[in-house]
Amino acid sequence: MTGTEINTPEQIDRVLLRAIAEDVGNGDVTTSALIPENHTTAAELVAKEDFVVAGLPFFKRVFGLIDSSVKLTIRKKDGSAVKSGTVIAGIRGNTRSILIAERTALNILQRTSGIATLTSQFVKSVKGLDVRIVDTRKTAPGLRYFDKYGVKAGGGHNHRYGLFDGVLIKDNHIDAVGGVGKAVKKARSGAHHLLKIEVEVKNLSEVKEALTAGADIIMLDNMSVKMMQKAVEVIRSKTNEVLIEASGNMNLDKVREVAGTGIDLISIGALTHSVSAADISLKFGS
Amino acid sequence: MTGTEINTPEQIDRVLLRAIAEDVGNGDVTTSALIPENHTTAAELVAKEDFVVAGLPFFKRVFGLIDSSVKLTIRKKDGSAVKSGTVIAGIRGNTRSILIAERTALNILQRTSGIATLTSQFVKSVKGLDVRIVDTRKTAPGLRYFDKYGVKAGGGHNHRYGLFDGVLIKDNHIDAVGGVGKAVKKARSGAHHLLKIEVEVKNLSEVKEALTAGADIIMLDNMSVKMMQKAVEVIRSKTNEVLIEASGNMNLDKVREVAGTGIDLISIGALTHSVSAADISLKFGS
Amino acid sequence: MTGTEINTPEQIDRVLLRAIAEDVGNGDVTTSALIPENHTTAAELVAKEDFVVAGLPFFKRVFGLIDSSVKLTIRKKDGSAVKSGTVIAGIRGNTRSILIAERTALNILQRTSGIATLTSQFVKSVKGLDVRIVDTRKTAPGLRYFDKYGVKAGGGHNHRYGLFDGVLIKDNHIDAVGGVGKAVKKARSGAHHLLKIEVEVKNLSEVKEALTAGADIIMLDNMSVKMMQKAVEVIRSKTNEVLIEASGNMNLDKVREVAGTGIDLISIGALTHSVSAADISLKFGS
Amino acid sequence: MTGTEINTPEQIDRVLLRAIAEDVGNGDVTTSALIPENHTTAAELVAKEDFVVAGLPFFKRVFGLIDSSVKLTIRKKDGSAVKSGTVIAGIRGNTRSILIAERTALNILQRTSGIATLTSQFVKSVKGLDVRIVDTRKTAPGLRYFDKYGVKAGGGHNHRYGLFDGVLIKDNHIDAVGGVGKAVKKARSGAHHLLKIEVEVKNLSEVKEALTAGADIIMLDNMSVKMMQKAVEVIRSKTNEVLIEASGNMNLDKVREVAGTGIDLISIGALTHSVSAADISLKFGS
Amino acid sequence: MTGTEINTPEQIDRVLLRAIAEDVGNGDVTTSALIPENHTTAAELVAKEDFVVAGLPFFKRVFGLIDSSVKLTIRKKDGSAVKSGTVIAGIRGNTRSILIAERTALNILQRTSGIATLTSQFVKSVKGLDVRIVDTRKTAPGLRYFDKYGVKAGGGHNHRYGLFDGVLIKDNHIDAVGGVGKAVKKARSGAHHLLKIEVEVKNLSEVKEALTAGADIIMLDNMSVKMMQKAVEVIRSKTNEVLIEASGNMNLDKVREVAGTGIDLISIGALTHSVSAADISLKFGS
Amino acid sequence: MTGTEINTPEQIDRVLLRAIAEDVGNGDVTTSALIPENHTTAAELVAKEDFVVAGLPFFKRVFGLIDSSVKLTIRKKDGSAVKSGTVIAGIRGNTRSILIAERTALNILQRTSGIATLTSQFVKSVKGLDVRIVDTRKTAPGLRYFDKYGVKAGGGHNHRYGLFDGVLIKDNHIDAVGGVGKAVKKARSGAHHLLKIEVEVKNLSEVKEALTAGADIIMLDNMSVKMMQKAVEVIRSKTNEVLIEASGNMNLDKVREVAGTGIDLISIGALTHSVSAADISLKFGS
Repeated sequence: MTGTEINTPEQIDRVLLRAIAEDVGNGDVTTSALIPENHTTAAELVAKEDFVVAGLPFFKRVFGLIDSSVKLTIRKKDGSAVKSGTVIAGIRGNTRSILIAERTALNILQRTSGIATLTSQFVKSVKGLDVRIVDTRKTAPGLRYFDKYGVKAGGGHNHRYGLFDGVLIKDNHIDAVGGVGKAVKKARSGAHHLLKIEVEVKNLSEVKEALTAGADIIMLDNMSVKMMQKAVEVIRSKTNEVLIEASGNMNLDKVREVAGTGIDLISIGALTHSVSAADISLKFGS
Repeated sequence: MTGTEINTPEQIDRVLLRAIAEDVGNGDVTTSALIPENHTTAAELVAKEDFVVAGLPFFKRVFGLIDSSVKLTIRKKDGSAVKSGTVIAGIRGNTRSILIAERTALNILQRTSGIATLTSQFVKSVKGLDVRIVDTRKTAPGLRYFDKYGVKAGGGHNHRYGLFDGVLIKDNHIDAVGGVGKAVKKARSGAHHLLKIEVEVKNLSEVKEALTAGADIIMLDNMSVKMMQKAVEVIRSKTNEVLIEASGNMNLDKVREVAGTGIDLISIGALTHSVSAADISLKFGS
Repeated sequence: MTGTEINTPEQIDRVLLRAIAEDVGNGDVTTSALIPENHTTAAELVAKEDFVVAGLPFFKRVFGLIDSSVKLTIRKKDGSAVKSGTVIAGIRGNTRSILIAERTALNILQRTSGIATLTSQFVKSVKGLDVRIVDTRKTAPGLRYFDKYGVKAGGGHNHRYGLFDGVLIKDNHIDAVGGVGKAVKKARSGAHHLLKIEVEVKNLSEVKEALTAGADIIMLDNMSVKMMQKAVEVIRSKTNEVLIEASGNMNLDKVREVAGTGIDLISIGALTHSVSAADISLKFGS
Repeated sequence: MTGTEINTPEQIDRVLLRAIAEDVGNGDVTTSALIPENHTTAAELVAKEDFVVAGLPFFKRVFGLIDSSVKLTIRKKDGSAVKSGTVIAGIRGNTRSILIAERTALNILQRTSGIATLTSQFVKSVKGLDVRIVDTRKTAPGLRYFDKYGVKAGGGHNHRYGLFDGVLIKDNHIDAVGGVGKAVKKARSGAHHLLKIEVEVKNLSEVKEALTAGADIIMLDNMSVKMMQKAVEVIRSKTNEVLIEASGNMNLDKVREVAGTGIDLISIGALTHSVSAADISLKFGS
Repeated sequence: MTGTEINTPEQIDRVLLRAIAEDVGNGDVTTSALIPENHTTAAELVAKEDFVVAGLPFFKRVFGLIDSSVKLTIRKKDGSAVKSGTVIAGIRGNTRSILIAERTALNILQRTSGIATLTSQFVKSVKGLDVRIVDTRKTAPGLRYFDKYGVKAGGGHNHRYGLFDGVLIKDNHIDAVGGVGKAVKKARSGAHHLLKIEVEVKNLSEVKEALTAGADIIMLDNMSVKMMQKAVEVIRSKTNEVLIEASGNMNLDKVREVAGTGIDLISIGALTHSVSAADISLKFGS
Repeated sequence: MTGTEINTPEQIDRVLLRAIAEDVGNGDVTTSALIPENHTTAAELVAKEDFVVAGLPFFKRVFGLIDSSVKLTIRKKDGSAVKSGTVIAGIRGNTRSILIAERTALNILQRTSGIATLTSQFVKSVKGLDVRIVDTRKTAPGLRYFDKYGVKAGGGHNHRYGLFDGVLIKDNHIDAVGGVGKAVKKARSGAHHLLKIEVEVKNLSEVKEALTAGADIIMLDNMSVKMMQKAVEVIRSKTNEVLIEASGNMNLDKVREVAGTGIDLISIGALTHSVSAADISLKFGS
């Protein structure tokens, strides 16, 4: 695995094995019928457009899970920008094994690379500003680890992984408790002491309430850039400790303007919920 | 489950439970700390743009898996077009349960509806022509069943599910065997007798070879519309039994022209590999 | 794995591990108490009657799953006929491991070889005729992959694997739809285009209906040889494209007569539902 | 569950779900295409030969796992002899569900009934003699629980379930330890105190050794009836406490003669390794 | 489930099912042989010493997983102190089911109650002081959720659940990075923004380093009470924002003195690594 | 694995993997953020008190499951007494891997060693007497294999593993059947013939009943030493074949007196239900 992310290989394998199982089922009827058992081949993994590559360890592992004798030579690092035509990896081994692994391996690589590519565009858009592009929990069911991996490879940062490793208080929580102040206090008492308390706010009066309540992070939800600007001023006039996060319907056109308000983080659901697969293919016989 | 698709509920549950597990982990720290155990609430599932809805049984089941006492009233059928603002479902029950289920349930519904929506646009584009829009194996790893479900809800048809339930002979198979003719013959002998034999071809000479070899389906891969036109003529001059499939880099602009060549099927990877999540959200307190 | 069959090793391992688990449970109390931990032994796998061997890769894998240091030398190929007394394999390694693996490994090998042996008797009976002996879905629960493997090793062919990879229309389907013609048409529209349509018929009038409806395969169910003969004539007078399958209560006495009617396939449930284990044992100290 | 056998339903369900999964895969393409979603039907489970029925709870559970709304009325008890033509159960409910469950439910019922039937024949053969017919570990991989259930339903008794719940010392154990006496002593010390010690012997001198060593059970392996007779005399002249078991190549012709020697148990591998499926089928529209 | 803890029932069930499986295996041979299938009984869950009860939902669920018709009437709440002789619950239903569930249900209840009891003793010892008793990751393998549940029921608080939901920098991390300051900065950048940064320190100079580096929480590891006192003074002279945690070899004798130094949290491994089972038993026939 | 215990490695791995999963979850955030990917380290496993070590194969395997390149040099054997300060093992390899494995590996080792240590104290207390110290089914849920392993490493013996591999008749069984005599007879008929019949008795009249009924083992439950003495006399006056087991509230003070009565086995729940973790830690940089 690359970068600052660690996970037990066994857990990753289980996801990949399920993906293999849904494609291969009780066997590849075409390949079984046509390809001699000991036939070998060489192939190249080729970029068919410009993109940021991510997910090569998973790509490689799919082959390993099907046939550990297939050899892969990975020539690029996750997170690097590749040009159309680039040979990203070489593959050599049993033809049956390569054909069976091909689609599953590409599916995971193309999705993860698509995520890295879109993330890197947002990161580039805010270049020079002290702001983090972060993801959300809007990931493909069962693929959160991989989706968030793509975000990091593209230069983004991860938000909390799930409901279990971060406190984020929303409207409904506040309503049930009876006010922002009470909510922040209850959260501090109920959650373990290594977690910060983040609160979602919709307007300036809620911003002030959150500040007074001692929130560690204030999320400005779906605000206009103008309102965000004022919110930042209100907060920064009181403290530099609190983190400010902007959230809601972000796109490449307006992200730099939003970043310019002085916020610390911009969270973007589209990074993982609306992914365009990077165009990558295996070229055989090379 | 809707339409002509059947699957054991237990298999679907397993996918949903894994998606829940990756989000909830060892518990929702925010909700546990803030929402009283017996607090109840009502919410509505609201469309925030126009789209074709798909995946409501899965959406509902996520709530059921977390808390069988939560009541959902589904007001729309999978496959129906909904307008922005439409209330698709009502939800009533334990607040903790609803908050914990919310994101996972939405993630699956938004993806599947996104797939149905794009599919329906392609289907509309070829309205009146005798052609099927079909999917591919380019699905999100672990989600093939759900992705293909979305395609059907959008009016498309499914291609083979995986490597196990259909014979599709590609270049590499042909090279290893030594010619289209030999490949088709070997496939007929090796695969069970309920499977047709489909062959991928790249030019007119391969089309003729495939015809002679007795292929049941001929896939025209990445051909120009002009070449497709000729291929159809060559094939139809010989037989009406063989199915003709067009494949490769399809988009909404050219799909009708392609369909006009007289082919039977158009397979489109983007239906499932480049999905834009439909914009849907839960509105609480309604 | 042998022949034209491919499956991910991980799926096969799971079945074998469950078989090991049900036998070994929390440990072999006899062996633990009696055999010194580092004791080694040599043994031979010996045929105790004449049969067709099948399942050697599974036999070997059981030992590998328990102790990868046990060495097996396989001397026969799956599908070969062995005489009583033949040494099929040599085994050498830790005595505890060999004793623990022995029964599970033999159970799978004896069943699969039993299937191959019976299949090969049917295949021999129709020697020289252009007909395939095929299996059915009447397999031991959880062992379909292995049972169908045995059929292939014995020279037979596989029918569809399960309900998912082949269309076979029966009485009940036809009744629910309202006629053979409608059923075939609906099946073509509902199933993906790589699947042929097979219809089960009970008499000549149904044969004609199926023909008219354009079925790809017609299964003659439980017909007398005489009626089969007529059915073949009716069909072949119209087309050579349609496959004809005979099904129901087949035995070694009448199979050649049935094959002589000109049908293409004979499906036999007994191949897998009424198996006699081949007599094979481990001889230690050799 | 019937009789004196108990097992957690969850463990049985897991085996049945895997059997369902291997048959249904990603869906029954025929039924999905042809049977309307809300179509209902009635069917009867009919005996097509005389046999002893066993496995009805599993048969019923397969339907329950696929669709809990399908209603079954079981009319016979496991272990009862049924005549050809007997209606064993009535089934009523969703047609799709019934068609999908049919084969898996029958496969388990036919195998288990086949086992019960053969067992009951052996039991009848020794009627009036004080001897138990017992099974072995020669069961279909993954189906031991079900196979042993069939034996009990047929009037037989179970031997140890696996390697973990009974001590059975064989040649190889004795050789490794250095004699029957040492082996029995080591087994008593190594195994927990609730287990008896059984020893396999091949001739009269080993019988004596085993007796002297204090074995609780002596298994006469592959002896002639004459030798068995002498072995029983030798043992009974010393003690009535020790159990005597006969093992090896038993059949219906000689079992009564063997039983007449005065042994206590006869273990028979064929009960479970060479099963003929009982002929049972679903009759629809009844 | 009680209190502020939430977890999907499915995950808890899986742990309980495994515990049942290891005890029941292929069946309770004694109960199967002796208790008639439809025999029913009533029993009471009785405290045999004074303790704080915890784990009743798990106790109840074990019965439910084995036989949903068994009725339990829970009379006490988790977290309540019970006296020896107290009837905690009534149980009524199938005798076989109750006997099979008994041991597994008691094992989990006795352990969790033992944890709650010890925790409550520590909590009582620091009564009136503004300090939290917290647990550690020193739990029984596979039982962390249950162990931490016991701590909360006893009035304690949970520390981070595992390595994934809290940053805790130790010696080895600092050494690898090159100093406390660098470590805190790197942790802030690498971990997501909802996590606080805790640092473990061994002496006063490290306390100062951690303070300067901007740590959110400082853990005083294995310090004398005197040194702790000084550490608290150093920290509080600078800021009231930083949390102070004491850790290492705590016991009931010294915990109040430690708490008196003004620290915020005391973490205690023994709460979960050295548990004495609470004495509880089922009394039948009541 | 050590001693006379055997289990399939795959089953042990599954337990260890679950323990790893609950600690590591989706990654070690601290280590990921701070430790360079290729950083290596050396560490020593050091005893911090005197104890009997047990569980080293499991300790080692945890590292192997996370990173097979980490090297461990085990210097002590399971079952050996180690002094405080002893280096039990050396560890060398990737720092991230070692830090991630550390806690889980220690948790299992400390518990198992704690069990071995307490067991060895009981065993020492009865030195010279012909009596076995045995465990019970009062183990931590999911850890029975490991808990019983610790008992053997400490010089104790195992009782039956679970409900499936030994017959133990208790009050409730006897009440349901109607007397000790009937119960023993029914158990002999219902259980397989390799199992002995143990009966729990509470007073001398029950002792006599059990004797008459032909029980193989008589368990004296919660008797005074005086009553035990008499029970032994009653039994031994009749037979030397029957085993006598003492059970209930045993401690180190009275165990030798109990053993002196002439009983054969003393079963002690506290060996596994009230464990104190042995004090062991990893020392880095050594």
